[in-house]
Amino acid sequence: MFTDKMILRIPGPTPIPPRVQQAMNQPMIGHRSGQFSELFARTAERLRPYFGTSGDVMILAGSGTSALEMSVVNTLQPGEEAAVLVSGAFGERFAKICERYGIVVHRLDVPWGEAVTPDKLDAFLADKPQVQAVFATYCETSTGVENPIRELAQVVRQKSNALFIVDAVSCLGAVSCEMDAWGVDIVVTGSQKAFMLPTGLAFLAASKRAWDVIDSKKPLAFYLDLKAYRKSLAEKTTPYTPAVSLIFGLDEVCKMLEEEGLAAIIKRHEIMRDMTRAAMRALQIPLMASDEFAASTVTSCHPETFDAEQLRKVLRTQHNIVIAGGQQHLKGKIFRIGHMGYCEPLDVLQVIAAIEMSLQQIGAPVELGAGVKAAQEVLLAHV
Amino acid sequence: MFTDKMILRIPGPTPIPPRVQQAMNQPMIGHRSGQFSELFARTAERLRPYFGTSGDVMILAGSGTSALEMSVVNTLQPGEEAAVLVSGAFGERFAKICERYGIVVHRLDVPWGEAVTPDKLDAFLADKPQVQAVFATYCETSTGVENPIRELAQVVRQKSNALFIVDAVSCLGAVSCEMDAWGVDIVVTGSQKAFMLPTGLAFLAASKRAWDVIDSKKPLAFYLDLKAYRKSLAEKTTPYTPAVSLIFGLDEVCKMLEEEGLAAIIKRHEIMRDMTRAAMRALQIPLMASDEFAASTVTSCHPETFDAEQLRKVLRTQHNIVIAGGQQHLKGKIFRIGHMGYCEPLDVLQVIAAIEMSLQQIGAPVELGAGVKAAQEVLLAHV
Repeated sequence: MFTDKMILRIPGPTPIPPRVQQAMNQPMIGHRSGQFSELFARTAERLRPYFGTSGDVMILAGSGTSALEMSVVNTLQPGEEAAVLVSGAFGERFAKICERYGIVVHRLDVPWGEAVTPDKLDAFLADKPQVQAVFATYCETSTGVENPIRELAQVVRQKSNALFIVDAVSCLGAVSCEMDAWGVDIVVTGSQKAFMLPTGLAFLAASKRAWDVIDSKKPLAFYLDLKAYRKSLAEKTTPYTPAVSLIFGLDEVCKMLEEEGLAAIIKRHEIMRDMTRAAMRALQIPLMASDEFAASTVTSCHPETFDAEQLRKVLRTQHNIVIAGGQQHLKGKIFRIGHMGYCEPLDVLQVIAAIEMSLQQIGAPVELGAGVKAAQEVLLAHV
Repeated sequence: MFTDKMILRIPGPTPIPPRVQQAMNQPMIGHRSGQFSELFARTAERLRPYFGTSGDVMILAGSGTSALEMSVVNTLQPGEEAAVLVSGAFGERFAKICERYGIVVHRLDVPWGEAVTPDKLDAFLADKPQVQAVFATYCETSTGVENPIRELAQVVRQKSNALFIVDAVSCLGAVSCEMDAWGVDIVVTGSQKAFMLPTGLAFLAASKRAWDVIDSKKPLAFYLDLKAYRKSLAEKTTPYTPAVSLIFGLDEVCKMLEEEGLAAIIKRHEIMRDMTRAAMRALQIPLMASDEFAASTVTSCHPETFDAEQLRKVLRTQHNIVIAGGQQHLKGKIFRIGHMGYCEPLDVLQVIAAIEMSLQQIGAPVELGAGVKAAQEVLLAHV
């Protein structure tokens, strides 16, 4: 096997397109130069459509978690109350961040693999008028569930004055997001998922309502002070040193996204989701998420007749393909296929074919080609 | 002029060596893979010599400022007291971070261009036994002053029980640092200076004394929680998503640093400092720092007979060389030449020659070749 041809089918980081890699190869420039300012302002502005906002998008050197924390430390104070919708590992993380800052957390837990539904949120918020922010996860990477953010936003807007803050790390850029129209107040995401970049950047956009709250509060941290980022962005720069090479890459990513068009990108991800789910069904491998709430960027499977870790190992060692395992209590029990970013339907056929062979290799019952055929039929219905 | 041949002679970011660029071009890998764990543990361990520590070095996705903040939020609580030695813009930043968290700050200010001397620190700490941390800047990038960290550490150790915390962002890897031997408790730095990487990573090492304090306190932030990084490093990973492509580059940087050897690297930077200073003296351009406290990574000049911004502009537009201007109240009044990282004595001759030509082009009094000659003489004394 080619040692440099490891194929990443995990829900991030995702493969880097060669032209993005090439763009990041540009010689370093000073981050206080006019050349950088022009580049930075141009890329920040072009991120807006993926958030569905006419407002500013902040770019941060840090991981997705740093951006989640940014959404907390600028909107709440210790002792204030927040609702956190927990449908997996990343909802859990929002709760932990809030608790670290002494924020009173009201958790709405749903079993891993299920979505938070508008009804549940409605009932949950009914007796909690004091809640000042509601935190939700768009795509819960740990389970492959896509929470119905648009409908949840409606509930928050109708039932409360709280800000609605959404972690869209593992889906933004690949799914519909209309934060202005839906009434979402803060959306955060990372660079290494649908944005096809290496890890190391995070993006955040805030509504007018959110900025009013942010302006009325003292930020609880320094590096993550949103007001500092807004002030600098108005001057086409960043308050602290930006990750310059990743911004070079982001500029090229914006070009690629614009060439394909957001509607086509969303459609491509939906097709890849449907192909993967059809294949797993044909192979009689149980899916974690229901059709209604299945993420278009990652599919989680909960096998009953074979060991998920054995499958992952053979895929990796025999076929050079990496898929993800489970997190926390699902560790060793599930596998997750990422189909996001620089990934096309034909790549999905490839990973399905490799899974079929691996199943045979580990002695699991499998009809070779059955999953591929089911996925082909999905794809052919769209071409 | 070649538009891709802009020569960076600023005190960070510094030019990226081609082999480091090449290393960063490797296809993306999952950050929870065994392959990444091995890479990560290997690079983290090899950073130790540059800190002069036998302890762990933490690697963070973020800017130098995020690492400064990390050193604050893990060692102090609101209401506790700290001394901050302020000799320029980055000492100032430490003070601002402390203030953001409600830490009582005692400032020891010295005029920009001067160093904090052991005598001054001794007198300053005499009546402040309650101070729990002393923050200092090793190389104050804004002025080109290198504070005498070894001697300052002695004063802190003798006069107080405070932790001694050092910002070495713009010099570590290019200067002597023996944190264990000197009794320095925390040292932080960034990737984009002597470590020859793009911006986006920060490194932090802590002493046994510091870890005892850290273990006794609740961290004031989440993403910057040092205990989480230590726990993950023991498992060869990171608590949150690392900047994978920069770690690829860091691995190659470690190889380059090891090939040259730290003693030779330190010597190279001292020679470049002496060449630059000899040249500026020959050109009758006043230097900001005295010989005793001159940084070996950046030289600041305070011209009296010409406009610093005019010089920078001609250098950039006519000769494709970027040098830095002044920060805060020195904006427009000084210029700073970076000679750090992927930079050799011959590169210093080049920037000096270009400065001479630019001076003639802006009508400043200059004897062409005089600066180059002075620098050549310094270099020849070492070969």
